[in-house]
Amino acid sequence: MVIGRVAGNLLATIKKPELEKYKLFVIEPEKAGTHLKNPGYFAAIDLVGAGIGDRVIVLTGSQVQNAVSDKVPADAAIVGIVEAMNIKNKK
Amino acid sequence: MVIGRVAGNLLATIKKPELEKYKLFVIEPEKAGTHLKNPGYFAAIDLVGAGIGDRVIVLTGSQVQNAVSDKVPADAAIVGIVEAMNIKNKK
Amino acid sequence: MVIGRVAGNLLATIKKPELEKYKLFVIEPEKAGTHLKNPGYFAAIDLVGAGIGDRVIVLTGSQVQNAVSDKVPADAAIVGIVEAMNIKNKK
Amino acid sequence: MVIGRVAGNLLATIKKPELEKYKLFVIEPEKAGTHLKNPGYFAAIDLVGAGIGDRVIVLTGSQVQNAVSDKVPADAAIVGIVEAMNIKNKK
Amino acid sequence: MVIGRVAGNLLATIKKPELEKYKLFVIEPEKAGTHLKNPGYFAAIDLVGAGIGDRVIVLTGSQVQNAVSDKVPADAAIVGIVEAMNIKNKK
Repeated sequence: MVIGRVAGNLLATIKKPELEKYKLFVIEPEKAGTHLKNPGYFAAIDLVGAGIGDRVIVLTGSQVQNAVSDKVPADAAIVGIVEAMNIKNKK
Repeated sequence: MVIGRVAGNLLATIKKPELEKYKLFVIEPEKAGTHLKNPGYFAAIDLVGAGIGDRVIVLTGSQVQNAVSDKVPADAAIVGIVEAMNIKNKK
Repeated sequence: MVIGRVAGNLLATIKKPELEKYKLFVIEPEKAGTHLKNPGYFAAIDLVGAGIGDRVIVLTGSQVQNAVSDKVPADAAIVGIVEAMNIKNKK
Repeated sequence: MVIGRVAGNLLATIKKPELEKYKLFVIEPEKAGTHLKNPGYFAAIDLVGAGIGDRVIVLTGSQVQNAVSDKVPADAAIVGIVEAMNIKNKK
Repeated sequence: MVIGRVAGNLLATIKKPELEKYKLFVIEPEKAGTHLKNPGYFAAIDLVGAGIGDRVIVLTGSQVQNAVSDKVPADAAIVGIVEAMNIKNKK
């Protein structure tokens, strides 16, 4: 899963109706902490009540469907808020 | 989901028939706003009536199937048009 | 979907039998036009009769299964031949 | 699968309940050994009792579902601990 | 699919049992020939009897499930051995 920061939010009135009930956040993967292709911002729905500035765990791809009960047109979803990240093997 | 801009469109007469009923747009992921590997252009179908120049939210991968009722041979689909992107945690 | 060019083909006698009936092409994603991780060559099956040199639309990932009726061990498939790509928002 | 090192762990009290029973590790894909886009850290659940510093094999994407019996909101899971990696074709 | 070379193998006694019956190879995507994010090594199971040094076709993601009959915790599998790669459109 991506480790990133909630950098902001998106306003999109015209969108698939199934996205209505979800907040759309802008995620900035942590420089050191992303397994996504290009660590620029990307959009994710929120499933745990995250807020702007939170360090979060973002589930990506079709596994998102395991975190929601309805069919959601989303490929990135916040599934955890990180309190601490202990890195012991810094290069 | 990718945050990008509709940069243009594709003309492809020879294609899988199931793609016929969809507009094929060329998406340019925003420099800062893409979770795709290499933010060059890529092709996506449109599901919300986007137009050239719009800033859009693009669903990728097999979750595209959650945004359409029929089986579609597409791995990227526009699912929202962005009116505003508020970034509060600029590095 | 990837926008790329058919750069050549692959000869592979030893392969999964389900790949037998498909041509195996080498795709070079367009410099500006790829949403794959690393726009080097990659292999794809052909579903629309493409030829070497054609600019093509390549479906990737498990959505490939929506473009074929049988179970195919492929994660990239040509689903369209591009006649024109109109880019209106060149940076 | 990714070849990487368990670099540390994550503390996240607020998370999807289905993640409760899994340890959340921070994985650093090996410089030379990752097929992830940007080999920064990423988060993975552990399925084989790995520990900090172990070199591990990490399954990514929806295939994670084949390694667990319940529906898990995770897209990366440790499925093996590497004792030796014999590379014979160094460039 | 990735075009790469079998660069070596992995020894991992502690691993998911379903991986037992498969050889675990280290794949080096060809510099020019990978559509994976970061063409470092990655791990794949072998389905066609490949050997070290072979140039191979590697299926990635959940489509791997189409190449095996049982549920396998793998996201990369060798599905072909390349005899020749004819590139006609070198840039």
